Amino acid sequence: MNIKEELVSEIASIVGEDNCSTRIADLYTYGFDSSIHHHDPDVVVRPRSTSEVAQLVSLAAREGIPVVPRGGGTGLCGAAVPIHGGMVMDLTRMDVIKEVRVNDLYCVVQAGVVYDRLNEALAPYRFFFPPTPGSGEACTIGGMVATNASGMRAVKYGATRDYVLGLEVVLADGSIIHVGTNTIKNSSGYQLERLFVGSEGTLGVITEVTLKVAPRPKSSAMVLAAFDRLEDAGACVSNLISVPLIPSATELMDDICIRAVNKAVRAGLPDVQAICMIEVDGEPDIVSKELRTVEEVARRSGASTVQVSEDAKQMARWTSARKSVMSALSRLGDDLVSVSLADDMAVPISRIPEAVVAFHRIAEENHVIVGTYGHAADGNLHTKMLLDPCSEEAWRRGERAVGQIFDTVISLGGTVTGEHGVGMSKAPYMMRERPDAWGTMMKLKKALDPQNIMNPGKLMQWEGGIICHLRYPCPDLSSSR
Amino acid sequence: MNIKEELVSEIASIVGEDNCSTRIADLYTYGFDSSIHHHDPDVVVRPRSTSEVAQLVSLAAREGIPVVPRGGGTGLCGAAVPIHGGMVMDLTRMDVIKEVRVNDLYCVVQAGVVYDRLNEALAPYRFFFPPTPGSGEACTIGGMVATNASGMRAVKYGATRDYVLGLEVVLADGSIIHVGTNTIKNSSGYQLERLFVGSEGTLGVITEVTLKVAPRPKSSAMVLAAFDRLEDAGACVSNLISVPLIPSATELMDDICIRAVNKAVRAGLPDVQAICMIEVDGEPDIVSKELRTVEEVARRSGASTVQVSEDAKQMARWTSARKSVMSALSRLGDDLVSVSLADDMAVPISRIPEAVVAFHRIAEENHVIVGTYGHAADGNLHTKMLLDPCSEEAWRRGERAVGQIFDTVISLGGTVTGEHGVGMSKAPYMMRERPDAWGTMMKLKKALDPQNIMNPGKLMQWEGGIICHLRYPCPDLSSSR
Repeated sequence: MNIKEELVSEIASIVGEDNCSTRIADLYTYGFDSSIHHHDPDVVVRPRSTSEVAQLVSLAAREGIPVVPRGGGTGLCGAAVPIHGGMVMDLTRMDVIKEVRVNDLYCVVQAGVVYDRLNEALAPYRFFFPPTPGSGEACTIGGMVATNASGMRAVKYGATRDYVLGLEVVLADGSIIHVGTNTIKNSSGYQLERLFVGSEGTLGVITEVTLKVAPRPKSSAMVLAAFDRLEDAGACVSNLISVPLIPSATELMDDICIRAVNKAVRAGLPDVQAICMIEVDGEPDIVSKELRTVEEVARRSGASTVQVSEDAKQMARWTSARKSVMSALSRLGDDLVSVSLADDMAVPISRIPEAVVAFHRIAEENHVIVGTYGHAADGNLHTKMLLDPCSEEAWRRGERAVGQIFDTVISLGGTVTGEHGVGMSKAPYMMRERPDAWGTMMKLKKALDPQNIMNPGKLMQWEGGIICHLRYPCPDLSSSR
Repeated sequence: MNIKEELVSEIASIVGEDNCSTRIADLYTYGFDSSIHHHDPDVVVRPRSTSEVAQLVSLAAREGIPVVPRGGGTGLCGAAVPIHGGMVMDLTRMDVIKEVRVNDLYCVVQAGVVYDRLNEALAPYRFFFPPTPGSGEACTIGGMVATNASGMRAVKYGATRDYVLGLEVVLADGSIIHVGTNTIKNSSGYQLERLFVGSEGTLGVITEVTLKVAPRPKSSAMVLAAFDRLEDAGACVSNLISVPLIPSATELMDDICIRAVNKAVRAGLPDVQAICMIEVDGEPDIVSKELRTVEEVARRSGASTVQVSEDAKQMARWTSARKSVMSALSRLGDDLVSVSLADDMAVPISRIPEAVVAFHRIAEENHVIVGTYGHAADGNLHTKMLLDPCSEEAWRRGERAVGQIFDTVISLGGTVTGEHGVGMSKAPYMMRERPDAWGTMMKLKKALDPQNIMNPGKLMQWEGGIICHLRYPCPDLSSSR
């Protein structure tokens, strides 16, 4: 253990014995998020109030100990992995919904409130917080702000950044600041509340969030369009937008993902090259009208079959099939594990077909299996790589493919992360994507955290290279597409 | 002149003789924006490219000369007034719409593109950039980003900040950076593009903007509801939102504003205590349905008369009456001038009635005339103070009223500026509103502009006090309500 016992006692005196741990099992567990990375912290704390967070950060600043804020631990890039050890700060006990003021179009929540729980609280008022991340059952609002998380509904409703009106933040010196306002409009200086969006704990600990809320749509319906050519599925999305028709969701799945969910959860999806699940929502009359337009555009774009549903159960089955992609991929091949390597790119919407075709070519060239899916109408694609984690050579081929995928994304005018964040996985590629913006970010980081104690080593290439708990020397991987 | 002749020659060699001026008339003219403030610059430059801007800022950095970026000059708070002299940089020659990619839901424009011109370019594609500022005919996109401008349609469509996907910025050292992306989603680090929103030229010169665009609604309709009690008009707005129904615009006018437009432009509005003009937009079927809901809610909220229109000409007449408030107020009393003093507040929506009633009380107590209007459904209120500008005592009473108005706004959980910015007018009050956020802003300012050459003296109380060109010692003001 790298932390002195007196310090642990001091920490325990702030949060209580039960909420401070240096037990090996706890350190090991809190060394993970949902990425491939791992590193033990020195101590785990679970504060219950902003005041406790401020005391903990003050202590960390005094002692020069890293502070790594953590929400639901659902992040896929290692943003919550304490790469330099120190204090992991689990914020899930700060889970109070402090205000629901739908008449003022906002709510105030502590950082540890879980996404789905907030929407349950907003439902009786017929309002919601729309981003709909895949991990909504477990991810926290603080984590969503820290990564600018979004999900299926961003093309119509925007990402988390578009809903953040105000924040309470504990800065690196332990001071508590309030940025933004409780008003829908605010022109009073730099939009600091949005600077902290995507900051992944590197500028301070987000303790409280004021979020704009939106009226919940009255109804929704879905089209499931099957395509024999991947490019046609991409073109379908562009054709919809130029109607213009902005769907509430457009979920794309390639043949690998379709095969995986058909095998793992018997989803019964058409055995084609690509599927688009297109959701429209709003007033019932409009939904019916838009549904017809979507159907017509899908056919015109070359869909081989088009199924339409306004039935809640059928739509839930389709959504559930889509949601199972990530876990289903791990069950496609016997010795293969689905690994978040490239993971989460965004390109201009019209470049989706080119991107997906390139990913398939890169997979073939490197003899790896890549499943591609995503939120096509906002240009956000996910890829999962299927690897035998015991094969060093498979990892090498996988990493080469990742580099080529990201190069493609950057050359198409895209970004290496649309909704998951940078963390450790994307850091080297993000610097490649836009070195000048990164330089400015580091100036701001230095201004707000001169000691570099707030989640150090994130958003930047870690000199130790990628630390991956899955990676150990093992047999060769022979499967390929 | 405080600037050396060699420097002027060097500046002229960058932008050309015709685009560099030290003529007294030019310096005087460029010493104004649309606020009450004035200060001559030392030189006026009109660059045509980012490269020219970068060369000018490098020169300014070398010489320690203030740089004050300027768009359409429509700002109401003095953000573009060169309070410390130096170089006013008129960006209106940088007016190229570089890309319109509606299939990708974005466009790229130079900072000097005028709002209405951009929307003309987007119209053939049936898309638009929605914020709708009152000065849309003249204000520039760069200026809108620099102040987080918005307008009538923010409650439904958001403010400028919600549309900024990427920026090109010339930093204080003359370097050119690109922040943000050309994608709808982006989780790659701090949302710098949104930090620069509202920065009023104090962090760098915004030279290019990537904006999200939205499908233009197919139809719209309006309700004009007249109320005998101001509170009822405010309650009507809250009642609409809790339906939930989000109107595309909700323009409130109090009795002073109604009287002013009826006198100045013979608008023929009902002679009541308050009017709400409520616009709904979208698909024709929905517009008709929402129109009926608005009518019903207005009556239930106590409206004495309710007029409904789907006729474009009638709606244009109403909108025009509303838009004439600012100029009409100056013609209400013979010796009175409408002055942007308190000007632009935002409160949580449900506090609108309290705020407006308090403004009336404050006006009465201080024997000043205050006209209140605004975008009620997003909580944004404007007040104009009618003063005899020759009366020192009237100014004193006016300023006392301003202080009380802002104290009220802050106590209601609001902000001293919803859409106009801080500039000089709001600086002292903004520091009162949220001193901790201001402290953080200043840390970031120092990190990006250590020499303090980028629009110095803005967003902060200027030690010289408020400089107002309208203010000179003159007779007493006796008119009051």
